[in-house]
Amino acid sequence: MKLSISVVGTGRMGSALARALLRSGYRTTVWNRTKQKAEPLAALGATVAGSVLEAVNAAEIIIVNVSDYQATAAVLHDEAVASAIRGKLVVELTSGTPHGAREAAEWFAEHGASYLDGAIMATPDFIGTDAGTILISGPRQAFDANEEMFRALGGNVQHIGEEPGRANALDSALLALMWGALFGTLHAIAVCQAEEIDLGELARQWTAIAPVVDGLVADLINRTNAGRFASDDETLSSISPHYGAFQHLLELMEARKIDRSVVDGYDAIFQRAIAAGHLHDDFAALSQFLGKSR
Amino acid sequence: MKLSISVVGTGRMGSALARALLRSGYRTTVWNRTKQKAEPLAALGATVAGSVLEAVNAAEIIIVNVSDYQATAAVLHDEAVASAIRGKLVVELTSGTPHGAREAAEWFAEHGASYLDGAIMATPDFIGTDAGTILISGPRQAFDANEEMFRALGGNVQHIGEEPGRANALDSALLALMWGALFGTLHAIAVCQAEEIDLGELARQWTAIAPVVDGLVADLINRTNAGRFASDDETLSSISPHYGAFQHLLELMEARKIDRSVVDGYDAIFQRAIAAGHLHDDFAALSQFLGKSR
Repeated sequence: MKLSISVVGTGRMGSALARALLRSGYRTTVWNRTKQKAEPLAALGATVAGSVLEAVNAAEIIIVNVSDYQATAAVLHDEAVASAIRGKLVVELTSGTPHGAREAAEWFAEHGASYLDGAIMATPDFIGTDAGTILISGPRQAFDANEEMFRALGGNVQHIGEEPGRANALDSALLALMWGALFGTLHAIAVCQAEEIDLGELARQWTAIAPVVDGLVADLINRTNAGRFASDDETLSSISPHYGAFQHLLELMEARKIDRSVVDGYDAIFQRAIAAGHLHDDFAALSQFLGKSR
Repeated sequence: MKLSISVVGTGRMGSALARALLRSGYRTTVWNRTKQKAEPLAALGATVAGSVLEAVNAAEIIIVNVSDYQATAAVLHDEAVASAIRGKLVVELTSGTPHGAREAAEWFAEHGASYLDGAIMATPDFIGTDAGTILISGPRQAFDANEEMFRALGGNVQHIGEEPGRANALDSALLALMWGALFGTLHAIAVCQAEEIDLGELARQWTAIAPVVDGLVADLINRTNAGRFASDDETLSSISPHYGAFQHLLELMEARKIDRSVVDGYDAIFQRAIAAGHLHDDFAALSQFLGKSR
């Protein structure tokens, strides 16, 4: 007999989670503050709970997917709910900060519940598919004991550490990388528009260089991991030629009145590293200059 | 009989260009301010010129690869050289700004020379190989007439427009995109280090998401090109969920004392777009907010 699971919060993502559970045969109870959003799931076999307490009482595992950790606290930090949750497993899939996850983990521990915190790295369309990626942190044993349920949510659900904040931290790190690429793209677009270069040309060139850039990103992570900051070839891959070419970008952006706030941020990091004597070290040496107190 | 070509400037890159020409059977003359850097090419069949004037007189095509456009001016803006250059084709492969390329094009036009400006998107190891990428701008006819020579320099040499500044502009745009990804990676690294996440884990996750990020970059360019700023699904791909998740990154960076100068630049762009009413539009709507004067 499969476990009973409750899904608290059935927006787009929570509904996708509930549907994946129902497809895999779990007895699924759902609750949402706006009940209409939960009702379509009844037709698929879900029980729609009239209260959070009812949802908590109905299941061994409570999956929470509301707007943020404050919303989680607002629905669960209730005396009756806090008492009902004892002995259950709470899986928090709401996105947030590592600090928020740690606070939540403490609160559930105080109330005798197991707690896993996850970060969903997928749109709802991917939930329940092989490509559905969810990072989970918290007690390994709680993850392993319920691996079958996690697999129902996504083929690429990974336990990445015991520390409850880890999933949110890794999520933020990967998003930081993604935003770097996306804001870099906005700069590339602004340069092309100012210089009357067709964006179709930019798209074609991007297709050709994307694998090269992906490789440089991997190399930057691996070099920093290994502490290999000395340049293999200082005339090519060191900070010096990067900074030389960067001056051309700054000049062009200044001449074309393109917002320099992001690239001035790059400049500050370049300059701190150069002032510290790293001009002829590999670009990866810049990783030592993102601490505020340095 | 193949053309005679002179390569002015035989640092790492200039030497690679000369070697590629020699391998393809061109009569090649080389000149470098520090003559010793040119001499190894003599053993491969190059003629080492004693002066720039000698190099210009020896060939129909002059390829220039010195440190910057000022260095080009310093070696070529000489009365005798300027007179000797009439009727020849100058191919400037030194990196610089579009403005610098336009000034150079004017100077060579005044002195009766044809001018092509190029941006080398490859390290010297790739020169002369199928993967060697060089963007060329300037008169199409001058490019087409010498396509065989350009193919000797790299399998992926492309004429991208008549306007002489275009190659440098597109080079800067692509570098802006690359630096975006690399500085984003530095932020991801800083977050992982602060949160004690092994960088090997970051590298593994990056391998998995790189194709997704590459697709988002392409989508951002294509949407902006088409002016498709309305969101297909405002709960997922619009500025709103991006900005929500971005707050978690800002909080984390603040708590961990990670330099926010770059991400505060993102924030300024987000905020301008949101203030202008684009919260529920696609991320691509941000591309309208990189102009300084808006």
